[in-house]
Amino acid sequence: MKRDEWILKEDGFNPMALGKCESIMCQGNGYLGLRAATEERYIGERRGLFIAGTFNQFHESEVCELPNAADCLEMGIDLNGETFSLLSGTFKDYQRELDFETGELHRHVEWTAPSGDVYVLHFYRVVSLQNIHTIAQRVEITPLSSHATVKLSTGINGQMTNSGSQHFSEGAKRFYDRRYMQLVQTTTQSNIDFVFTTDVKLLENGKAKKVDTHIAMDRRKIFSAFTTDISKGSTLTIEKITTIHTSRDKNMDGCETAEIQAFGLEHLKVQAALGYAGLAKQSAETWQKLVWHNIPVTVDSKNPHHQLALRFAQYHLQIMAPAHDNRMNIGAKALSGEGYKGHTFWDTEIFALPYYIFTQPNTARSLEEYRYLSLPGAREKAKGNGYTGAQFPWESAWLTDGEVTPLFGAADIVTGLPIPILTGLIEIHISCDVCLGVWQYYMATGDEDFMEKYGYELIFETATFWASRLEDGADGLLHINNVIGPDEYKDGVDDDAFTNYFARWNLHLAMEYYDKLKDTPLLARLQERLTLDYDKWAEKAEKIYVPAPREDGVIPQNRTFLGLKDIDLTKYKTQKQVGSIYNDFNHEQIGEMQVCKQADVLLLILLMEAAFTPEVKRANWNYYEPRTLHDSSLSLSTHCILAGDMGDDDEALALFERACNIDMGPNLQSSNDGVHAGSIGGIWQCAVLGFGGLRLVGGQIRLAPKLPESWDKLTFYAWLRGQKVKIEVSKTEIILENETKTATVEIEINGNQHVLTDMLNIKLK
Amino acid sequence: MKRDEWILKEDGFNPMALGKCESIMCQGNGYLGLRAATEERYIGERRGLFIAGTFNQFHESEVCELPNAADCLEMGIDLNGETFSLLSGTFKDYQRELDFETGELHRHVEWTAPSGDVYVLHFYRVVSLQNIHTIAQRVEITPLSSHATVKLSTGINGQMTNSGSQHFSEGAKRFYDRRYMQLVQTTTQSNIDFVFTTDVKLLENGKAKKVDTHIAMDRRKIFSAFTTDISKGSTLTIEKITTIHTSRDKNMDGCETAEIQAFGLEHLKVQAALGYAGLAKQSAETWQKLVWHNIPVTVDSKNPHHQLALRFAQYHLQIMAPAHDNRMNIGAKALSGEGYKGHTFWDTEIFALPYYIFTQPNTARSLEEYRYLSLPGAREKAKGNGYTGAQFPWESAWLTDGEVTPLFGAADIVTGLPIPILTGLIEIHISCDVCLGVWQYYMATGDEDFMEKYGYELIFETATFWASRLEDGADGLLHINNVIGPDEYKDGVDDDAFTNYFARWNLHLAMEYYDKLKDTPLLARLQERLTLDYDKWAEKAEKIYVPAPREDGVIPQNRTFLGLKDIDLTKYKTQKQVGSIYNDFNHEQIGEMQVCKQADVLLLILLMEAAFTPEVKRANWNYYEPRTLHDSSLSLSTHCILAGDMGDDDEALALFERACNIDMGPNLQSSNDGVHAGSIGGIWQCAVLGFGGLRLVGGQIRLAPKLPESWDKLTFYAWLRGQKVKIEVSKTEIILENETKTATVEIEINGNQHVLTDMLNIKLK
Repeated sequence: MKRDEWILKEDGFNPMALGKCESIMCQGNGYLGLRAATEERYIGERRGLFIAGTFNQFHESEVCELPNAADCLEMGIDLNGETFSLLSGTFKDYQRELDFETGELHRHVEWTAPSGDVYVLHFYRVVSLQNIHTIAQRVEITPLSSHATVKLSTGINGQMTNSGSQHFSEGAKRFYDRRYMQLVQTTTQSNIDFVFTTDVKLLENGKAKKVDTHIAMDRRKIFSAFTTDISKGSTLTIEKITTIHTSRDKNMDGCETAEIQAFGLEHLKVQAALGYAGLAKQSAETWQKLVWHNIPVTVDSKNPHHQLALRFAQYHLQIMAPAHDNRMNIGAKALSGEGYKGHTFWDTEIFALPYYIFTQPNTARSLEEYRYLSLPGAREKAKGNGYTGAQFPWESAWLTDGEVTPLFGAADIVTGLPIPILTGLIEIHISCDVCLGVWQYYMATGDEDFMEKYGYELIFETATFWASRLEDGADGLLHINNVIGPDEYKDGVDDDAFTNYFARWNLHLAMEYYDKLKDTPLLARLQERLTLDYDKWAEKAEKIYVPAPREDGVIPQNRTFLGLKDIDLTKYKTQKQVGSIYNDFNHEQIGEMQVCKQADVLLLILLMEAAFTPEVKRANWNYYEPRTLHDSSLSLSTHCILAGDMGDDDEALALFERACNIDMGPNLQSSNDGVHAGSIGGIWQCAVLGFGGLRLVGGQIRLAPKLPESWDKLTFYAWLRGQKVKIEVSKTEIILENETKTATVEIEINGNQHVLTDMLNIKLK
Repeated sequence: MKRDEWILKEDGFNPMALGKCESIMCQGNGYLGLRAATEERYIGERRGLFIAGTFNQFHESEVCELPNAADCLEMGIDLNGETFSLLSGTFKDYQRELDFETGELHRHVEWTAPSGDVYVLHFYRVVSLQNIHTIAQRVEITPLSSHATVKLSTGINGQMTNSGSQHFSEGAKRFYDRRYMQLVQTTTQSNIDFVFTTDVKLLENGKAKKVDTHIAMDRRKIFSAFTTDISKGSTLTIEKITTIHTSRDKNMDGCETAEIQAFGLEHLKVQAALGYAGLAKQSAETWQKLVWHNIPVTVDSKNPHHQLALRFAQYHLQIMAPAHDNRMNIGAKALSGEGYKGHTFWDTEIFALPYYIFTQPNTARSLEEYRYLSLPGAREKAKGNGYTGAQFPWESAWLTDGEVTPLFGAADIVTGLPIPILTGLIEIHISCDVCLGVWQYYMATGDEDFMEKYGYELIFETATFWASRLEDGADGLLHINNVIGPDEYKDGVDDDAFTNYFARWNLHLAMEYYDKLKDTPLLARLQERLTLDYDKWAEKAEKIYVPAPREDGVIPQNRTFLGLKDIDLTKYKTQKQVGSIYNDFNHEQIGEMQVCKQADVLLLILLMEAAFTPEVKRANWNYYEPRTLHDSSLSLSTHCILAGDMGDDDEALALFERACNIDMGPNLQSSNDGVHAGSIGGIWQCAVLGFGGLRLVGGQIRLAPKLPESWDKLTFYAWLRGQKVKIEVSKTEIILENETKTATVEIEINGNQHVLTDMLNIKLK
């Protein structure tokens, strides 16, 4: 096994890369996300622990966000009176490695203290994928040059904030049995109790070591201090096991704080009894079971970075999804940072959902159930804006909140005033994105139960929204004015192509399913609760204006785009940091140029590929790509797949590599606030939907692989209509193997219709 | 002039001393207190800016506290791509100096970056004593080894918290004229707007330098980034001027936030026009005018540390007192840290007030007016406990809040539970402490206007409280049960000597003034509003039990103390950190031993010195001092003065030096949370009331100096009955010079009654 295709490495310690490594080496399990902050503290660090679905509003002037919970990683290490820090003294053999195979983070270094004393330190850490409430740490300290007096200080620190906003009131702090530490914190507005319980154990050369403990409580903090001696060459091991439970956990529903505390303590004792090694082994086995043995994407590429990037994507897609609770969804920065406040965007449906639909359909279903459970907020939002049906919030948190997009962002360089954020008000395509997600899930899985309970209602209610949203135009047609399309460099545009095409599609889909359900008890039941006005859908769908391609094939992104001025974008196309155009122009000025933040018409073409001819695709690619700055992390994967579709193989691979570099690349600051969840979904999409060629086209499963020159083979798994299928693509053949074998699957492969029963082997060339 | 008697120095950079230096080198002006955090950030720093009287309650589970406002000191300095930090590279010639004479803080260092590039950096800082809203910084950077590209980042950072508690909601962030930065933050519960406005200017070799500015807003943050080049040997100077205004400022009363913002901007422009040098000069002149020319305490001692300590005391006593606003008082940690939450304790009256009474009587009056204005809260507290009159809160913040003592403190090492804090419930001597402060102010100043408006009412209302608080005993006498005396190592004791003696005194004082005011319109007016029950006061005062000295002269500290077990305290008497007894015993166990945290009976004897014979004083000294651990910073000065009274001159000087070392001494951690305001008052008391021998005895002014062996001369100023008197004490003579000369002053000097008209010269020996 090629280890460098499994391990994300940091070879040199760089204080400027603290935030980046914390994000991309984040550990978690969908319940919690733990940034990879180091045990010793540094200026510039951004320690973070986020628990899915625990949103809190700090103040009425802010929107709710995922609170940054207490830190349990910090460890003050004092060696013969010198504080361990890589900023003092010197060091060698530094390495930090996140092993995707096991989920374990390991850091080691040989540190020479300012005094000249030399130590070897190892830091291991696991967030259990098996028991989602457990974090395990192990630290090993070996003095090489002399005997050492080691002073350790570690505990639970609830002083963490979200960039200064403190979401918790201080709760109980307890020591039990002069050993276990516990800290309670409660969110100030949503009133969620967080209970942290931790146990610290010391060993010398692997044998338990009895050490006097000094306990300390400070504001929002509980700590233990240990002092012990260790002889030259011996190894002191510190094992710290922490469990976290909250009153939002489904099994804690209705519990008093004291009950959660008692449960937390008991649970900790059980977990601590397994020891670090036991917990790490258990978690690694779960990684195998759920991901690496189950649904791996394997690529034989000349560039080992490709395989690593796909592992990176699968790793993060696994730890970002709160599959355990359908009241929660994926945040734009996953659970890996404060960015975007843990809110859910269209990123879920358009960029992440395809992964789950094809590999973990239960998780996909849970994510779309979240949308169903969010209908109260979506209906409220529609109503508040004078519409009917369900208008989904651009940013979504609590099920009943509706819209939670903040109203203002960064500074306008011209006026000095904060820029208003309009997405929450007018970026309305999210409602058809949700509909698209539901439909794709259904097309891939055939899950009738989901559709009957949730899916049809979501499709009908979004259609009803669109019907109410359309405006009469002077041309006798219906229009959608004053929106933001996927290209967020254009505010308040009329007849955005993406929005209008998908609105019509949404109406047609509702009509199709209404027809299909006619005279069923299900439709009757839905009609009791909902206003299902088929005729209105039909009338509106008939009259909606949808911009057709011009004579040259170019589809106008919106009513005015093609008339805006063109400027030389070379400087920004070759930028090192995204958004550099804002250094020269303000948002209003950018709105007056033919420049796109991200894929817009091209995304429409990818998602509705059956609707456009190859000529139209090519024309739009040629027109829009040069005008697109890829300033959104969501842009590159779309362009990668389309480039492949058009036969630009080298371009496709180059875009794939750029997409992989969004988080894994050399830019030190771009991931500080968390990884780019949508873009990570995009990495997988590039490989499987792009090079692997697996798509849903018009609802039908299609396979049309096109491996890059440098790839010999690509193997992946996809659940298709309830069957788990192993798909192996090489330059010479395509092999499909049905591992479930309870049904057949119809699939179009390279233009030919096939039925997969047990196995298909298609020779190429 | 001996510079080392003016300058508090840190010679070597020690990351463990960050908190201590931030506190003891704190700058301010009574309006604001700014901890001496460095421009570059370090782990372990505790940046802090506190504005007097701006209390906020983070959450109902916490008491209100002075919020830690935005930081305007931070400056990210990047030199040829290397971040300036004393933890990287090497450095020499490091020195940080706080010059008491000018109030200026200066730090300089020659830094060799990891690359080998060498730079000299100077950091200057002033908090204006002239304009209390202004902070001025100057930074000078000179590259010695090569040309340098300098990147600076500085602004206003509102992400600061009080150990994690965020007291502010995020307000407006503005850039004006692409130059001035402004940030607004508003306390979440008390709704006070804070407006920070700042200007940054760059100069090269003293000449203004035009540099491109990149502006950035983040959450709760507004920053400017500058990049510029500087040639080898040239000096880049950065001047940053910041103004702070709040809606609690008296002149901002009733203003809208926008008005404060506009005022802040205009005010900043005026201040910035003066430049750093102009502002620093103005402030230094004000220091001369208010303190160093006006009321200096000068000592000719063989040990220069003595003079420095007295300057340290006068410096901090000047910057801690909110003399500008009688709705505010002094916090136990002044405005120098989070400790004790900015709350006011008895420390004001017993330890700090004498300084102001004698040197700045207007400030003393303002501090006691605060108590008068706090009467609503004190009456509420009495009423809530079933009493009448005014029961002052042990901890005091807002005028109407009443008690704000937190209910729980640190952990009990035996049970693992937080220890309840009972002081707010039962440490009731604060009410007679307030009465004593009022009376001392009156005795020293003769300020009838104060007494008529505030003083008599305070004395009557506290007397009424005591009358209602006394309990019938089986012995036919009245008792005060279940209190904490000054010795806080004993909870819930009965007949605490300090409390009972002073309660009786308070009753007698009320009776005396009632008699004096009989048949005046003033008394009639007071009687309209208050229940003044002279007979009840008299009856209660008559029957109150006050513990007399035993046969051996020892006064029982309380009903049980002398029967408690004695243990060997050697280990704790020689401790390095206060409170070490808690490492071996819990609070309950300490309550069962004859061990005192601090002066208790001895403080009574000092404050009521006329009431006790020399034999009783000696007996109690001999009994209690060996049983006192001085675990309160308030203990040493009392013992110093008493030691001198008893002729233990060496002991007195040793205790004086220990008192000076509470903040200035070698203990690196003891001042992290702020300086010890009461103890700093104690330093001055040791010199002026102790060695200088200036006292109020039974309300009469008395002078009985007794210089330590190593002191040749002590000169100080005291306002006595409206006359400013310069007092010069040497081994051979005492010279009093009346600088005001509008009245005569009766004063007892070394046992003889004198009348000071213009000058007195008393030969000794």
